[in-house]
Amino acid sequence: MKKPLRLLVIGGVAAGTKAAAKARRDDPSMEITVVTEEPYISYAGCGLAYYIGGIVERRESLFARSPEEFREKQNIAILLRHRAEAISTYDQTVRVTDLESGASFVFSYDRLLIATGSTAVIPNLPGVALEGVHTLHGITDADVIKARLDSGAVREASLLGGGFIGIEASENLQHRGVAVTLFEAADRLMPRLYDLEMSKLIREHMEAKGVRILTGAAVERFAAGPDGTVRSLFAGGKEQSCDLAVIAVGVRPNVRLARDARITIGPTGAIKTDARMETSVRGVFAAGDCAETVHLVSGKPYWFPLGSTANKQGRVAGANIAGGRKTFDGVLGTSILKVFDKTAGRTGLTLAESAEAGFNPVAVTITAPTHAPYYPGAGTITLTLVADRGSHRLLGAQAFGDTAVDKVIDTAAAALTGKVSLAELTNLDVSYSPPYATALGTVLVAAEVLENKLGM
Amino acid sequence: MKKPLRLLVIGGVAAGTKAAAKARRDDPSMEITVVTEEPYISYAGCGLAYYIGGIVERRESLFARSPEEFREKQNIAILLRHRAEAISTYDQTVRVTDLESGASFVFSYDRLLIATGSTAVIPNLPGVALEGVHTLHGITDADVIKARLDSGAVREASLLGGGFIGIEASENLQHRGVAVTLFEAADRLMPRLYDLEMSKLIREHMEAKGVRILTGAAVERFAAGPDGTVRSLFAGGKEQSCDLAVIAVGVRPNVRLARDARITIGPTGAIKTDARMETSVRGVFAAGDCAETVHLVSGKPYWFPLGSTANKQGRVAGANIAGGRKTFDGVLGTSILKVFDKTAGRTGLTLAESAEAGFNPVAVTITAPTHAPYYPGAGTITLTLVADRGSHRLLGAQAFGDTAVDKVIDTAAAALTGKVSLAELTNLDVSYSPPYATALGTVLVAAEVLENKLGM
Repeated sequence: MKKPLRLLVIGGVAAGTKAAAKARRDDPSMEITVVTEEPYISYAGCGLAYYIGGIVERRESLFARSPEEFREKQNIAILLRHRAEAISTYDQTVRVTDLESGASFVFSYDRLLIATGSTAVIPNLPGVALEGVHTLHGITDADVIKARLDSGAVREASLLGGGFIGIEASENLQHRGVAVTLFEAADRLMPRLYDLEMSKLIREHMEAKGVRILTGAAVERFAAGPDGTVRSLFAGGKEQSCDLAVIAVGVRPNVRLARDARITIGPTGAIKTDARMETSVRGVFAAGDCAETVHLVSGKPYWFPLGSTANKQGRVAGANIAGGRKTFDGVLGTSILKVFDKTAGRTGLTLAESAEAGFNPVAVTITAPTHAPYYPGAGTITLTLVADRGSHRLLGAQAFGDTAVDKVIDTAAAALTGKVSLAELTNLDVSYSPPYATALGTVLVAAEVLENKLGM
Repeated sequence: MKKPLRLLVIGGVAAGTKAAAKARRDDPSMEITVVTEEPYISYAGCGLAYYIGGIVERRESLFARSPEEFREKQNIAILLRHRAEAISTYDQTVRVTDLESGASFVFSYDRLLIATGSTAVIPNLPGVALEGVHTLHGITDADVIKARLDSGAVREASLLGGGFIGIEASENLQHRGVAVTLFEAADRLMPRLYDLEMSKLIREHMEAKGVRILTGAAVERFAAGPDGTVRSLFAGGKEQSCDLAVIAVGVRPNVRLARDARITIGPTGAIKTDARMETSVRGVFAAGDCAETVHLVSGKPYWFPLGSTANKQGRVAGANIAGGRKTFDGVLGTSILKVFDKTAGRTGLTLAESAEAGFNPVAVTITAPTHAPYYPGAGTITLTLVADRGSHRLLGAQAFGDTAVDKVIDTAAAALTGKVSLAELTNLDVSYSPPYATALGTVLVAAEVLENKLGM
């Protein structure tokens, strides 16, 4: 009988657990072990802002599966509070430390998956280590922030960074009765993800909901109050009082283990893989926030860490580890963001990204009813479509509105994936009935305006 | 100076008015006339059920634009209550009767658009002409039905036909406090549009909402009460009392004018056109409910009259009439239907249609949360994906659920249009955040199950 393959997975959140589960399903004989530094696995990182806001009430609901379930139902060993210290791809071993006992041991593998995720960037500023100054990246962060909120100590909060976490946290902190000031170093919110017009709509809506937003505002230091915890911060020399500061200025991929093992790191700084999610070393795979991917529109290396992508990459890695032949060809940079009672979403390239990627882009923006105006409850949606002047190829979409943003963005994402032409887009057979859409539909109307602008 | 072209449009609802407006935009010099038998134009036929139900309160809101607006803003002549009697493609003339005065005249055209729409099928049954027995196809039908409802005379209604109109009317009549019995001659609701499982879900939900549904039940005759209006009907020999009967057993394309003029009628019984919406006669175009199109998945002639398609075809016809080169390549049979507080939607081919079209189809059905279960308000959605066993090509999607049906169906429609492969579909970069979707998303999960079933 063939000796079963040994799979070691480093990392136990989305990509790691998904890959382990998929490998188990496809190869019942494999010996599978997951090691993670954290005391828990398989949690919904994307739900943390809503957990501190009390919208998600039960902490347990954030955990998709427990280590016991993995052990009992799928025969997958989960080593919590174990840190992978070093990889030897020559020996096919990983040195692991048990963080509880401090004991260290060497684990031999036949296949290795690096799913080490990402870490929130913490700027090196005076006072950044004060209690009350926190990132919101893992469950532990959320626990600490929530405890501080629950203690009643927080009346004012400052958010550093106008990206996903900053915007989601704004809403959730305000939901808890906290006055929120958001500091963004760039001149507008989400400068890389949205073109100017959408960025403005997001800001205006947040301000209408009472969030104070300061752009071009780099925080310089934090100051403590009498209790030794954060009491204020300084930006542009001005003091802003706060009982809580959430740092959400970005994340970076955890690649130290891979880099030390001479596994190739791509130009984005994340671990380079092929479409099978295999790294530069045969038998060593990477997936999730630590892995680089390809942008399907620009064709260039791209890093855009998201839980959804981690799940997909984990599945592909798991299948291939078990001998399959799945591929993950890349992403479109799709994302969606709840902005209080409105939604922002995007897929593909912005106008600015398109120009950077070497296209000659043109964009149109329309505002339309979310469904037939005569049917009750219609809101509005603003949609930007970006296309290439020469080839008339669709390059990207951005939307902001009351409803239907997810629909419009997913439709555009499928169209981008299928390289649907602009002419096809103007005739796309999307679903129509008065409660759901206008007769032509938002995407078609925008595509028509874009055609006209291109003189088609 | 060149003499301006004369365009005559026969029909003033969706395709006719859209084409006239588009032709005007693209050619300011054209002389454009629209003739219609009806006393109004440009109305939202898809909103009629909601108008009789009182959900749409203002009748005026159903009219997109008035004849005056067309005349004044776009220099388009609208002849209401004028019937086109005959077309001579040799002389390039149409004989038109003014229904008010009875006068008849001959109109010379350079370009002709036939946008004569469709007519509700009225089965030849005893009592079918009684007052209280009505179709629900145009504004006039809606006015008559609404007046009867408003008079307070209707406590029980019978619906003939379990398609779009029958199902939408069920909800709206019940909304007005009327007890509804629906008769469907086939063995289930929407037998051509949905496979068995979805059809069942629709029925169960309607029954849960209090609609009585009789399938395999062909209505044989209507009987009058003492006031001479409908009081009951008979189906399978059994009497069902009703103060209103709505006939919604289907529609057929209005092709008499075209057929008499020897314009080619396609195998579906609707007017054959090329992708430019031009008929077999040069300079004569057809668009909307009277026109045949192509099913983009089967590649076969297809007739699926919808207001959204009429608008798109009207736009393409109008552009080409004005000398442009737009095409309308076909449809996917996409449709969406509000079923009380749930939604049914479909695109592409069902399992049954796929087999008929010569594919070797396989289908999977999954039920999944509409968004991250830990975020409040998640419902469920059931999704069927159909693919071809040999080529692994996606053929169609059907969905039923609390929310997100329109999103999932539009995403599938774009994927079908772009011929996105099943492997691409399992990795589709759709938008994810807990309030909007699950980490993988419904379409991806179903695609994965389908891949597994196909042994990919």
